[in-house]
Amino acid sequence: MSKSTNLKVRLPVLVLVLEVVILALYAVFVTYDDNTNAKLQNNETDPMQNSLYRDYPYFADVQVMIFIGFGCLLAFFRFYGFSGMVFNFLTATFTIQWAILIQGFFQFYHDGKIYLGVINLLNAEFACAVVLISFGAVLGKTGPVQLLVMALLEIPVFSLTEWAVLKYIRINDAGGTILIHMFACYFGLGVTFVLYRPSLNNGHPKETTSYHSDILSVMGTLFLWVFWPSFNSALTFKGDDQHRAILHTFIGLSSSTITAFALSAVFHKRGKLTMADIQNVTLAGGVTVGASVDMMISPVAAYALGVMGCTACFFGYKYLTPFLAQRMRIQDQCGIHNLHGLTGLISSIAGICAILLASEETYGPSLYQIFSHRAPPEGDPKLLELQELIPGLKPGLGRTAQEQALYQVAAVFATIAASTVGGLLTGLVMKLPFMAAPSDEDCFDDELFFNTPPDFESVDALKNLISLEEKEKTSSVNTKV
Amino acid sequence: MSKSTNLKVRLPVLVLVLEVVILALYAVFVTYDDNTNAKLQNNETDPMQNSLYRDYPYFADVQVMIFIGFGCLLAFFRFYGFSGMVFNFLTATFTIQWAILIQGFFQFYHDGKIYLGVINLLNAEFACAVVLISFGAVLGKTGPVQLLVMALLEIPVFSLTEWAVLKYIRINDAGGTILIHMFACYFGLGVTFVLYRPSLNNGHPKETTSYHSDILSVMGTLFLWVFWPSFNSALTFKGDDQHRAILHTFIGLSSSTITAFALSAVFHKRGKLTMADIQNVTLAGGVTVGASVDMMISPVAAYALGVMGCTACFFGYKYLTPFLAQRMRIQDQCGIHNLHGLTGLISSIAGICAILLASEETYGPSLYQIFSHRAPPEGDPKLLELQELIPGLKPGLGRTAQEQALYQVAAVFATIAASTVGGLLTGLVMKLPFMAAPSDEDCFDDELFFNTPPDFESVDALKNLISLEEKEKTSSVNTKV
Amino acid sequence: MSKSTNLKVRLPVLVLVLEVVILALYAVFVTYDDNTNAKLQNNETDPMQNSLYRDYPYFADVQVMIFIGFGCLLAFFRFYGFSGMVFNFLTATFTIQWAILIQGFFQFYHDGKIYLGVINLLNAEFACAVVLISFGAVLGKTGPVQLLVMALLEIPVFSLTEWAVLKYIRINDAGGTILIHMFACYFGLGVTFVLYRPSLNNGHPKETTSYHSDILSVMGTLFLWVFWPSFNSALTFKGDDQHRAILHTFIGLSSSTITAFALSAVFHKRGKLTMADIQNVTLAGGVTVGASVDMMISPVAAYALGVMGCTACFFGYKYLTPFLAQRMRIQDQCGIHNLHGLTGLISSIAGICAILLASEETYGPSLYQIFSHRAPPEGDPKLLELQELIPGLKPGLGRTAQEQALYQVAAVFATIAASTVGGLLTGLVMKLPFMAAPSDEDCFDDELFFNTPPDFESVDALKNLISLEEKEKTSSVNTKV
Repeated sequence: MSKSTNLKVRLPVLVLVLEVVILALYAVFVTYDDNTNAKLQNNETDPMQNSLYRDYPYFADVQVMIFIGFGCLLAFFRFYGFSGMVFNFLTATFTIQWAILIQGFFQFYHDGKIYLGVINLLNAEFACAVVLISFGAVLGKTGPVQLLVMALLEIPVFSLTEWAVLKYIRINDAGGTILIHMFACYFGLGVTFVLYRPSLNNGHPKETTSYHSDILSVMGTLFLWVFWPSFNSALTFKGDDQHRAILHTFIGLSSSTITAFALSAVFHKRGKLTMADIQNVTLAGGVTVGASVDMMISPVAAYALGVMGCTACFFGYKYLTPFLAQRMRIQDQCGIHNLHGLTGLISSIAGICAILLASEETYGPSLYQIFSHRAPPEGDPKLLELQELIPGLKPGLGRTAQEQALYQVAAVFATIAASTVGGLLTGLVMKLPFMAAPSDEDCFDDELFFNTPPDFESVDALKNLISLEEKEKTSSVNTKV
Repeated sequence: MSKSTNLKVRLPVLVLVLEVVILALYAVFVTYDDNTNAKLQNNETDPMQNSLYRDYPYFADVQVMIFIGFGCLLAFFRFYGFSGMVFNFLTATFTIQWAILIQGFFQFYHDGKIYLGVINLLNAEFACAVVLISFGAVLGKTGPVQLLVMALLEIPVFSLTEWAVLKYIRINDAGGTILIHMFACYFGLGVTFVLYRPSLNNGHPKETTSYHSDILSVMGTLFLWVFWPSFNSALTFKGDDQHRAILHTFIGLSSSTITAFALSAVFHKRGKLTMADIQNVTLAGGVTVGASVDMMISPVAAYALGVMGCTACFFGYKYLTPFLAQRMRIQDQCGIHNLHGLTGLISSIAGICAILLASEETYGPSLYQIFSHRAPPEGDPKLLELQELIPGLKPGLGRTAQEQALYQVAAVFATIAASTVGGLLTGLVMKLPFMAAPSDEDCFDDELFFNTPPDFESVDALKNLISLEEKEKTSSVNTKV
Repeated sequence: MSKSTNLKVRLPVLVLVLEVVILALYAVFVTYDDNTNAKLQNNETDPMQNSLYRDYPYFADVQVMIFIGFGCLLAFFRFYGFSGMVFNFLTATFTIQWAILIQGFFQFYHDGKIYLGVINLLNAEFACAVVLISFGAVLGKTGPVQLLVMALLEIPVFSLTEWAVLKYIRINDAGGTILIHMFACYFGLGVTFVLYRPSLNNGHPKETTSYHSDILSVMGTLFLWVFWPSFNSALTFKGDDQHRAILHTFIGLSSSTITAFALSAVFHKRGKLTMADIQNVTLAGGVTVGASVDMMISPVAAYALGVMGCTACFFGYKYLTPFLAQRMRIQDQCGIHNLHGLTGLISSIAGICAILLASEETYGPSLYQIFSHRAPPEGDPKLLELQELIPGLKPGLGRTAQEQALYQVAAVFATIAASTVGGLLTGLVMKLPFMAAPSDEDCFDDELFFNTPPDFESVDALKNLISLEEKEKTSSVNTKV
């Protein structure tokens, strides 16, 4: 069994193959876009108007979330901190370079080339967030080869779904609630369903946190919390739309956070705070405002959404996660269904309400910019009228609010279906024998894949100190299923 | 006694009540401002001119300081890392949503509504910094209910003081030395005076740091250090004023830092460096340049202010903090009087000197923009003349430099008075029996309010190792009083 | 011996002298530049056009790299975390204030004054990066007095070299590969050659990492990784040049990172991942793309450079570092020769190839902006023609691509020569008896210069647990020589 998890050949061969493929595809297909091609600059180009200055600040903020926020957050296990942080680093790095290509074919491809600028990287980061959220479902129970394979397969399924939903169903989803959070969630649940390990339902001795790993994980939460407004607003329209997206995200996170503290205390038998709640449930508001984040929902609605999302997320951790594990064979390690699925559902419903309530009275003519599919179609005289009020308004599909709402519903179901099927199939591939999956007893242990430092032994020795009494204390750690 | 610190009912009830109040007030009063309201955008609106792009970068930097900088810095106690970081998170999150409302009524209220944009959030963050600084005085000796109550009461007192000083006394205080640092300091000292715990004057066995908590705390210092220029310049005029604010803050911090190292070594009996000095005293320069941060004080003056502020802060920790604790019943846990009070005093004096020395020779006509109260009043022919040189110059009060200097002095005294009284009264409320204040022996211990991980027990066991010899070693930790 | 490392007098006296010198020089020479001088603003000044808004975002990103990225990365030793992080803080802070002066005399001096704005700080940060890289060669074996002296001497040598190369040889080196990375590397090697400690070639019992220090160090890597695109692009032309620099850096780092994982696994005898590789080798791509980072090299070339640089760096750690230590008396503690020297060499060659291949066909007229020395000289009619296409194009030297390539080669050799000689001489000064150098047995130990917390004793006690078996495990730690 120890032979089958050895990375000495598997990982390098996989990486080498991937690199050769990526190199070849970059060589043939990837070139500079209008903002990065020196030849296209002329005496009318104002360098400060380069798209870089609109995109890079948000790209950098999301980078911090991906590499440092997720990295620290996923390092919450006591004996699995190296793996949590470092596999996140590996998976994220591979995913972005892969998504540049695959998304590139779907979104930035014409005349035989993928055109590259920071905007592609920003889009690829969102694809990367999808993979990292799915990763949360199988944290501790998968090796690096499996994770690379998951990324390899998830990105095409995601890019196809994203492209199909945006091109054919055409939805409003500025914060990526449906396409990012819900897709990632159900894909991850599909994977973990296939990778079900019955013996882990009884808990695992190493499935625990330490004082330092809990603090590290809170730091990850704080980085995610601080930069979430950038995440939710990175791909909105510039101007007041982006401004509202930032406001709403901040307000939703704030109300979500204090709610999480209250719930954590009231449902602990001695009224104490549980770190897992603070690490995860506080963030629910960021997802919950997503689908309507750029709309005129009013600040108080963002506040209420934060409270609702947080509450759903909390009870999900408390009741749904154990139920899924024990009855449905779905072991959702980090509880992504609570933080991304339940909140995503609430967010989608809120988005639909916001769409149904949207009127020219509230939005003025920019209604047709935000809800671009409601804009009159090409040739409609109302379009010309609106274009005078909003220069550059693009023709839409002339949808009514009700029609748009139905398309949103369709998108939710389509996304759930595509991601679940994709996740199940990907899980089957990840289960193949040469994927270096850890054995049940080697789960949650850095020793398996890392050359650990001398003190890891002594840390390890402390495991013997975990008495029954202390085991009981860990019962509220979010990873206990 | 253990019953009285249980959060199971108290914290959720308080949070619930606060949320209902905030929801109601947001619903009735809070709406979008001109930069976030879709309806107000028209064909003359350039989205890239939205105020978001001027305010958000500074907002994000201050967010990092508040949540990560303060969070890590306050996690310096060995057995109180969860509490330091997490109570900071809770307090900050609540404070900002509360300050949006209260400051909103004072500063952004007209026609029955509070108008909301990122600029309100930025102002609320400064109010939040005030509460977190005050928190430093009582760190380790207060529970989350007390902290929320402190924030609940401090914000109105602060907002009222800020409004009254800016509206009636009208001062120059770009870096917030008087209104933020000095207010926060004397409010915190007022609170801690009321919460005096005589038994803690003899030290507490858990009032100590660990190797990891010290490193974590230095990381907090570094985040504060790096983003302090954004803090000091966030609310200055744009252009050269903000540019100078950033320069001066950086220079002041730099000279302050190397001074702190020198003083730390020279006053340790074996010439060693003390981490508490590096965590705190290095930052003194950032406060000391505050009151004159946007003025033409010259780079060398910023350098000298950093050295002076650092020196005062260092000796404050060494002599004044123990004196205050033992003779004045003021237990200033993190030494906020040194880092914010003494430096604030120096900064105020420096600001007054800079005001007295300011002349048109140095500043040109923009003298009347920076020192806006010296601008000629409405109707003065000189105003029209100046408005040709500086379009958009607002009419002022026609004050002389001497008059302005006197107003600055008045503002310092008014702020100290208001904050001290406010702090004393708030302390009385926080002392009420149902506030879940920790008992003396439960201070500085995460166990009281947190569900700690299994290894906290073994960490705890190490407490028995703290011999007399080791106690002596902690004598220079800043928390020893 | 213990007397000779006492900082009580030495450090304060040195800092005091430096501060007096700096204060005097700032007072006499440093004034505000056009963007920070209030007097130069008039009714045609648009505050939002102030250079601050172009420079500050990159300055802030590099600040995070310098203080937090380097700080955490250098804290990777188990018993030397305080020193790694805190000496980095001290050295960086001093270096920047010193570089503002010294670089100021070379680059920003006219009419008897150094003109100061954030752009000077940004340049000084690059000088600071040079010193911190060199510091990596002697980490653990030098005290703070030595480090300050190193910075004191390295900055003038660096500034002179930088000035001479840019003014007389005139090269393309947007990412600072030659002037920053290679200079820093060979200077550091020069210093460590002089400070050779034969006894450390057999390893040192404290030259080891811990579980927590390894994680902290990865966090440092992640901060460097995330903000490296800002570092490599901070001083390029604005617009498409900067945009390409960001793209290439990101792509180079990405391919470098996955390559590092593959190499780490394949060369470990049991196929495990080594943290030292993840902390260092992953970053190689950032240096390797440096010299051609703003050119039209195509995305695939950036990808390939990342792979090549990473490979060279990895084998450097594996074979070259031990060879240098045992045969050449060059103990390169952090392996800077691998991460900055070998990659710098590859980058320089790639830069030369890119220069030789650059044509108007690919770049259009902006060829003469990026390769500014190839622009026609003053008076050439072709210059006027080009200036119509690119307003503001400066006259160049009319060099051919081949000529420019030769100058690049000259610059590489000149930089290596100057830095090596400078490093050797600086090493001699640092070896003087009153420099408080730690004895061999006190290396890698915080105890020597820090007032450590009580649990450091117990951490220390764990040292006895380091058995032979565990020693073997550390054999792949990058610090083992």
